Amino acid sequence: MQLQFLGTGAGVPSKFRNMASTALKLLDELNEVWLFDAGEGAQLQILKTNLRPRKIKKIFITHLHSDHLLGLVGLLGSRSFQEGTDPVDIYGPKGVREYVQTSMRITRSTLTYQINYHEFEASDFDVKKLTPLKIIDDKKFTVYALPLDHTVFSVGYRVVEHDHEPELLIEKVRAAQIPEGPVYAQLKRGETVTLEDGRTFDGHEFIGAAKKGKIVTILGDTRQAAASVVLAQDADVLVHEATYQDSEVERKKARNHGHSTGVQAAEVALQARAKTLLLTHFSARYFKKDIDQIGEDARRTFPNAFVMQDLEEFEIDDK
Amino acid sequence: MQLQFLGTGAGVPSKFRNMASTALKLLDELNEVWLFDAGEGAQLQILKTNLRPRKIKKIFITHLHSDHLLGLVGLLGSRSFQEGTDPVDIYGPKGVREYVQTSMRITRSTLTYQINYHEFEASDFDVKKLTPLKIIDDKKFTVYALPLDHTVFSVGYRVVEHDHEPELLIEKVRAAQIPEGPVYAQLKRGETVTLEDGRTFDGHEFIGAAKKGKIVTILGDTRQAAASVVLAQDADVLVHEATYQDSEVERKKARNHGHSTGVQAAEVALQARAKTLLLTHFSARYFKKDIDQIGEDARRTFPNAFVMQDLEEFEIDDK
Repeated sequence: MQLQFLGTGAGVPSKFRNMASTALKLLDELNEVWLFDAGEGAQLQILKTNLRPRKIKKIFITHLHSDHLLGLVGLLGSRSFQEGTDPVDIYGPKGVREYVQTSMRITRSTLTYQINYHEFEASDFDVKKLTPLKIIDDKKFTVYALPLDHTVFSVGYRVVEHDHEPELLIEKVRAAQIPEGPVYAQLKRGETVTLEDGRTFDGHEFIGAAKKGKIVTILGDTRQAAASVVLAQDADVLVHEATYQDSEVERKKARNHGHSTGVQAAEVALQARAKTLLLTHFSARYFKKDIDQIGEDARRTFPNAFVMQDLEEFEIDDK
Repeated sequence: MQLQFLGTGAGVPSKFRNMASTALKLLDELNEVWLFDAGEGAQLQILKTNLRPRKIKKIFITHLHSDHLLGLVGLLGSRSFQEGTDPVDIYGPKGVREYVQTSMRITRSTLTYQINYHEFEASDFDVKKLTPLKIIDDKKFTVYALPLDHTVFSVGYRVVEHDHEPELLIEKVRAAQIPEGPVYAQLKRGETVTLEDGRTFDGHEFIGAAKKGKIVTILGDTRQAAASVVLAQDADVLVHEATYQDSEVERKKARNHGHSTGVQAAEVALQARAKTLLLTHFSARYFKKDIDQIGEDARRTFPNAFVMQDLEEFEIDDK
């Protein structure tokens, strides 16, 4: 499982930072890629990676601001051109369907595959209770959404991989000279089995530890918010915006524009006991040194924080 | 007057060719830039040039296919962010206004300037008579549009710079010891004047030749079309699509998809007596050598033909 950042800029692109779009690569898990936001140029950035548009099966839009949305239709078209035929599920605020369908109608675009829209709006959430809405619940993953605190309706997503079942320690089974057969499955389930030769074995002795599934939280634009802490609880990785530096002036700007500073993102990661904080969505006004400073400032609060660059990959490993 | 190609690809982007967008730089003439089409990433390409979005005062859309349109809203937003305050005139097929306004409404975008829409549709043209429609007629330029032959309504634009008034040959006037005054303007107009000292001069002897204005023709996607020849008549520069190579198979594909081969573009340039042909809009399926071949094939019909690259500039000089 990896994250790859296609765009780490905010509002307008700069020479070095494209508009917001983050790929969650679930190739080992599902042979799929999930995309979070699709700012203009997402499909152009994808050309510089080894991502295949046809592997993108789910697209999650955090909010409908242009820097998160304007690349969606182009990407859907490229995916069609490259003979993607599997349906795509698009999750996002109400309006995303109208945006896509109007654009497709006016540009006379047709696709080789179906789009399933899953729209939600503020009234779908019990915001005061900070209860995330379960928007996907399948065999391997559950995904939740919860509104954040921005100038428009903006949500964060929490992707929870289910715990992996314990694996049968096959070498140990063989060493015990247990003959192959249905008994292996029983052992794997932790049952106690008695073989025909009279020997009895406790399955628990032949299985490894259950491997915890990963938790990845990817937020839309937001001020520092209690909802962010809920979504990021114990997350392996929290992707949080850090549009501004942390001076008093910048904090005020962040508040006025519905954004966060890097330090505010770090405070969220700390409160949520996240393991790693990846910072993105930096104002186009900043030079490289300013953005490096955002990272340094954040690390004083939350040491395991990193400033992401366009096209950077982050491996979500088993630690 | 220069042309700069922001995107020279067709349909979908490749690593080396962005979506269609061509800037006509009229900085000396009007201190303006006019943009023809705005495929996705136009604003990203502009970041790599010295073009300033706020200088873009007119945008001409040839047709509403996604590879010519999807960068428009992002560009308008950047122009606003960079404090462009002058209005923008957008010319294009009916639908461009709905596309922009729907996108702006859904993304909650606001601009620092006004957009004036100038939409037209097939019924505005007398296609059989091949009479171009005058869409701009101001002090320095006249612009015409005429429908081409594509799978959807697609137009070409002919930009005609008015001839420059003859200039007063000031050194010659001074050498004749004609004293400064209103008489200079009379001479410049070619009038015959009699000075107080009794001497008489014919203005025609003191003015240079009238400098012909430039003609630049920029076409949308099209099959080889009679309308193209009309629009490109005596043009200094013709920008023509060359989506396909010129084998029999490719010519058939070109026809089926409403496009041209490079050779077909060259034939148009030849018939129209254009001075220069700039080829663009190459299929993403082609490698560099294939596109070079398109240029070579075209030059056998029309020697002054060139394959354009992304970000390439072409100076429209006085020859």
